[in-house]
Amino acid sequence: MPVDLDSLNLSMGKKARMYNLFYAHGPGHGMGMFLPVDQGLEHGPRDFFANPDSQDPDFEMRLAEAGNFSAIVFQIGIAEKYCYSYAGRVPLVLKLNGKTEIPSSDEALSPQIAMVEDAVRLGASAVGYTLYVGSPKQSEDFVQFSRIRLEAERMGMPVIVWSYPRGRAVEEKGGQLTSWAIEYAARVAAELGADVVKVNLPEYSAEKHARTPKEYSSRMFSEEEAVRRVVAAAGKIPVLVSGGSQVSDEDVLHKAELSIKCGATGLIFGRNVWQRQWDDALRITNRIREMMVEYRQR
Amino acid sequence: MPVDLDSLNLSMGKKARMYNLFYAHGPGHGMGMFLPVDQGLEHGPRDFFANPDSQDPDFEMRLAEAGNFSAIVFQIGIAEKYCYSYAGRVPLVLKLNGKTEIPSSDEALSPQIAMVEDAVRLGASAVGYTLYVGSPKQSEDFVQFSRIRLEAERMGMPVIVWSYPRGRAVEEKGGQLTSWAIEYAARVAAELGADVVKVNLPEYSAEKHARTPKEYSSRMFSEEEAVRRVVAAAGKIPVLVSGGSQVSDEDVLHKAELSIKCGATGLIFGRNVWQRQWDDALRITNRIREMMVEYRQR
Amino acid sequence: MPVDLDSLNLSMGKKARMYNLFYAHGPGHGMGMFLPVDQGLEHGPRDFFANPDSQDPDFEMRLAEAGNFSAIVFQIGIAEKYCYSYAGRVPLVLKLNGKTEIPSSDEALSPQIAMVEDAVRLGASAVGYTLYVGSPKQSEDFVQFSRIRLEAERMGMPVIVWSYPRGRAVEEKGGQLTSWAIEYAARVAAELGADVVKVNLPEYSAEKHARTPKEYSSRMFSEEEAVRRVVAAAGKIPVLVSGGSQVSDEDVLHKAELSIKCGATGLIFGRNVWQRQWDDALRITNRIREMMVEYRQR
Amino acid sequence: MPVDLDSLNLSMGKKARMYNLFYAHGPGHGMGMFLPVDQGLEHGPRDFFANPDSQDPDFEMRLAEAGNFSAIVFQIGIAEKYCYSYAGRVPLVLKLNGKTEIPSSDEALSPQIAMVEDAVRLGASAVGYTLYVGSPKQSEDFVQFSRIRLEAERMGMPVIVWSYPRGRAVEEKGGQLTSWAIEYAARVAAELGADVVKVNLPEYSAEKHARTPKEYSSRMFSEEEAVRRVVAAAGKIPVLVSGGSQVSDEDVLHKAELSIKCGATGLIFGRNVWQRQWDDALRITNRIREMMVEYRQR
Amino acid sequence: MPVDLDSLNLSMGKKARMYNLFYAHGPGHGMGMFLPVDQGLEHGPRDFFANPDSQDPDFEMRLAEAGNFSAIVFQIGIAEKYCYSYAGRVPLVLKLNGKTEIPSSDEALSPQIAMVEDAVRLGASAVGYTLYVGSPKQSEDFVQFSRIRLEAERMGMPVIVWSYPRGRAVEEKGGQLTSWAIEYAARVAAELGADVVKVNLPEYSAEKHARTPKEYSSRMFSEEEAVRRVVAAAGKIPVLVSGGSQVSDEDVLHKAELSIKCGATGLIFGRNVWQRQWDDALRITNRIREMMVEYRQR
Repeated sequence: MPVDLDSLNLSMGKKARMYNLFYAHGPGHGMGMFLPVDQGLEHGPRDFFANPDSQDPDFEMRLAEAGNFSAIVFQIGIAEKYCYSYAGRVPLVLKLNGKTEIPSSDEALSPQIAMVEDAVRLGASAVGYTLYVGSPKQSEDFVQFSRIRLEAERMGMPVIVWSYPRGRAVEEKGGQLTSWAIEYAARVAAELGADVVKVNLPEYSAEKHARTPKEYSSRMFSEEEAVRRVVAAAGKIPVLVSGGSQVSDEDVLHKAELSIKCGATGLIFGRNVWQRQWDDALRITNRIREMMVEYRQR
Repeated sequence: MPVDLDSLNLSMGKKARMYNLFYAHGPGHGMGMFLPVDQGLEHGPRDFFANPDSQDPDFEMRLAEAGNFSAIVFQIGIAEKYCYSYAGRVPLVLKLNGKTEIPSSDEALSPQIAMVEDAVRLGASAVGYTLYVGSPKQSEDFVQFSRIRLEAERMGMPVIVWSYPRGRAVEEKGGQLTSWAIEYAARVAAELGADVVKVNLPEYSAEKHARTPKEYSSRMFSEEEAVRRVVAAAGKIPVLVSGGSQVSDEDVLHKAELSIKCGATGLIFGRNVWQRQWDDALRITNRIREMMVEYRQR
Repeated sequence: MPVDLDSLNLSMGKKARMYNLFYAHGPGHGMGMFLPVDQGLEHGPRDFFANPDSQDPDFEMRLAEAGNFSAIVFQIGIAEKYCYSYAGRVPLVLKLNGKTEIPSSDEALSPQIAMVEDAVRLGASAVGYTLYVGSPKQSEDFVQFSRIRLEAERMGMPVIVWSYPRGRAVEEKGGQLTSWAIEYAARVAAELGADVVKVNLPEYSAEKHARTPKEYSSRMFSEEEAVRRVVAAAGKIPVLVSGGSQVSDEDVLHKAELSIKCGATGLIFGRNVWQRQWDDALRITNRIREMMVEYRQR
Repeated sequence: MPVDLDSLNLSMGKKARMYNLFYAHGPGHGMGMFLPVDQGLEHGPRDFFANPDSQDPDFEMRLAEAGNFSAIVFQIGIAEKYCYSYAGRVPLVLKLNGKTEIPSSDEALSPQIAMVEDAVRLGASAVGYTLYVGSPKQSEDFVQFSRIRLEAERMGMPVIVWSYPRGRAVEEKGGQLTSWAIEYAARVAAELGADVVKVNLPEYSAEKHARTPKEYSSRMFSEEEAVRRVVAAAGKIPVLVSGGSQVSDEDVLHKAELSIKCGATGLIFGRNVWQRQWDDALRITNRIREMMVEYRQR
Repeated sequence: MPVDLDSLNLSMGKKARMYNLFYAHGPGHGMGMFLPVDQGLEHGPRDFFANPDSQDPDFEMRLAEAGNFSAIVFQIGIAEKYCYSYAGRVPLVLKLNGKTEIPSSDEALSPQIAMVEDAVRLGASAVGYTLYVGSPKQSEDFVQFSRIRLEAERMGMPVIVWSYPRGRAVEEKGGQLTSWAIEYAARVAAELGADVVKVNLPEYSAEKHARTPKEYSSRMFSEEEAVRRVVAAAGKIPVLVSGGSQVSDEDVLHKAELSIKCGATGLIFGRNVWQRQWDDALRITNRIREMMVEYRQR
């Protein structure tokens, strides 16, 4: 579903930057296709083994330009050192928090490592924030997020929230991939003031579904219905669907089409793009963009 | 009991905003009827299953206008994205803290997610704050509240406190629905500087009452007396009675009338209103308002 | 012992406000008689059962005026809503921190709930602070206090410290009512920068005394000696003696006289005053004031 | 070893204040003799039993003047109330942190209770800070110290560090009186930016020495060598030797002479001075000062 | 690999200071040779036993000048007291955090003890920061680092990150010397915004390698390949190789050559230099510099 910028009561700065992401670049017409490259921090260099070229952030920068992505997503260090020569041509989403996968994620919290001020200084079009909904450290997370939200509001900077259910208590109630958890996370992002929300798609598991609250465990949703429900849970907030670990062409395209068909405003696929060789990465990118254009024209 | 704005030593800004809530909108004449919609954060989308329309905050916005509520209560994200076209017509109470129900509530604390500055910017008529009286994290809560209280004082913004006994130690002494706990919570809100306090009504249980301090456990209160005591515990501070989970028409109306009769200044019923279909929701709203008008005229 | 304002190197603002408390109101001539009303927060409404009128803070306000107290002590919420019409006539001591009795006091800490700025705005004559000497959270307490102390210094606002030994480690060494603990607490308040210190009187118990450090456990003090020692431990800092829970007329008067005779600068009796009916409360107040005047004239 | 103020790259404010301590007052000629009186906070009034007069800080103030000490050391509360009439005549070192001995010292941390700003306001010549090297709370301590160090740098205020090994991990490796621990603490103070460091002297114990790191446990140091090593560990930073609990005349004088002979810049003896009666205290003070003068003249 | 200052999008201040380190001093031509002297804090004086002269920081200062190092690395206290007379001649890298080895390193965190402002005031050419990647306190570390990073950005001060895998979770996955851990740490420093990264070289151990993630444990790297991989993991960020504890001449030179050959931009050897006598230290320094010059000329 294309984002309607006039319906969101955005400040002028936010509207201008959202326009840059959803209209001036990428598939445009209110749709978005983002290239996230924060896995070097989140998972470490092991994610680059599948395609050794991908270890050099310039590979992804070139890909973002050649594949006409709406924006590339980097952490501050990479953004500062690698984006200068692409400034203006490829929009930047500056990720503001992050962590390694080394310590336990039972009490997950993604600490702030860059400021809205950095994003402004680098000419970014939005900031990204990972929110771990339901984590025992949720309180700290909400407070950390809210300071960023306010700062972003003052500076007219859109906030994209990676809204992920996470931590012990989520696992006890069925886990991070249940409809219950993902819909809840989408709503939380909307309640807290996200301008765009990034979610994972639910994955059905009978055993896990049974552990969710009774409103959910007593119902079954089809695959499409489950996706539509997540989009609905976010309300007016545009939804980006996350790609996750690398899968087959068929599966990538299915996920992309399913998302767009069920109301998502865009896709944010990283490893499924840059873990492929250059040509292959461009090819899948083009197929996805064409699919988005098709849906837009319906 | 209608609120007498001149008896509370309010700053000019607070008085003007309180007038907006208790005189210019809703039942008026010093009485209030509020529509809270923070359950999407507190409980998640499962609260919308009873009436799927309610998942769209615009449903509640329209209801607040059509039902002539004193104000609607939203979290920051929903307020920013959904209230613009109703600005001025439906007063806003901006909730400043909140949490999900996912992590354990043994050490409940509701973290700050919006600032008084946000409320001012959005033209809100008051801010809302959930205080968990008696929680092991009470110290943090008091400090967090006090910063908000001071900021609100400086900006002339009334503070409505959701004053809820909560946490391990409360449970040990009889729990959050005893007269002891609710009266204590009402007084704490008054001591800390609430301008309005929102409470639950006590529910008598012999077993639980027996665990409260001897001043309470050695006495019995009638249903009306128990409610009057809560209102008295808050002193000059106007009391709003909370609706809780959905119950029958009869029970809703009984609770509403009992509250008003025993001195409450208003009602703040959410699920009991918007978990009903549109017509039904309006009907119950009108009956409650009529009841309030009746009492006012006595 | 009357306070000699010129011997304390007070700033001009502090001197003016201390004069208001110890000379312009109450028994005067350097002596003080304070009416503390923070029990609604510290213990909850159960403290008002003995005299239901006392639940309304206006009862204590009228009492403070009729009984010619040096000042009334309130928390911020009560001060803001109840003191306006008495402004100037009855000095206010604004309590800046407080807690409920609900969570465990093993690691007692009384969080800040109002600021020196609030006291200035409300025209208060002093601020009050509860310090839990020896608590495992002593570090946080000292830091919290010190920020207040500095702010009060800048604003010329006297600081009255409720200096109470508290917490696990104190209990192990004999407990909060031993001479050791109370003298130590008095000295700590003086070291940290109190302008006035409020203490409890020691209560002798052979078993507890035996657990105190050898300098104490190897000695015995008479009742008077024990009180004089506490006053001496505070050095130049004027000492107010706390009343504690309600006792007989005889016991109240004994405690009052003992304190004054042994060097205290004043009394701060709450429940022993306002848990009585109006006439009875005024009567005991007058007897205490007369006793203070007598001692002053010797 | 007299301090050479020109070799330390001090700011002008620090140089002027250090001159006041080490040249204009006390033994002078670059040597220092300090009178610390923070035991009322650290140990409580029990330290005053040996000489009841000492409980009145004016006793120590008079002693500091009569005995021509380089400075007296007080906490903020005592400094504000007791030093005014001696201002200019007796330099003040304002201690900025402190704690009671009541809670466990396994995780020792001495919280900040006064600010550099207080020291400036009171005309102090230096500030004092207790650093617990090796404590599990070392991180907090370093951060707290560093803020003070920076503030002191900006205001030209010398910082004297009480550098004490402390806490569980120190005990496991031989304890706070081993050469290993004391030399390490002296170096840490120098690394962190002390202008002067106060240390305890090592006390040899075969059992404890054996638990220190192999570089130490494989060597033996004579008494003099052990002291010289501590002085050397502090490098250019002048070292003050701490007195500890009261001992015989002979032992005091031995410790004083040993320290000066082995390179210390001064002594900071508290209980060994003021736990004596006036005449006796002056007598020992004079003998120590004469000894320092003698060494200076060699 | 010489650093190409124009490729890094540095601010003018950072470029000027990096030029000072990598061109105006030391081996120059984009290469660096640093002399770190923070072991007095990290390990204590025991590190000075091998060469007692080294305890005096002036020894290392003279060595840094005579050996033409790119810069000397000191903590704030040593920098302030020992560098004045070398100012301008020997560049300073001011280390901003540090800790002792006394408390457990299971939850390692190196607290901030100096500010970027200190570095600016002292005319430093860069600041140093130790980041413990993977520690349970990683969140605090990232936040602490990021504040420094932003401050350094504002002041044009380059940041050199000591990026060390550390803590329980790292040990469980093979430990701090595996290729997995070191490459991850290098990448994390780059992601977070290091301008230069200091790493240890991997040390192969079959048992430990087996515990690393499958991408690593399923492969073997030659010694050179392992070093090249670390350099590649840091991307554009220049890599300095750490010396570690003292080893033989042969081993030092092998490590130095291996590093330079495999792409490192420089060396940062401390104990392997200053734990030697003056002549020996200068000799090894000269041999290393000659080797770097040779490689530069290829």
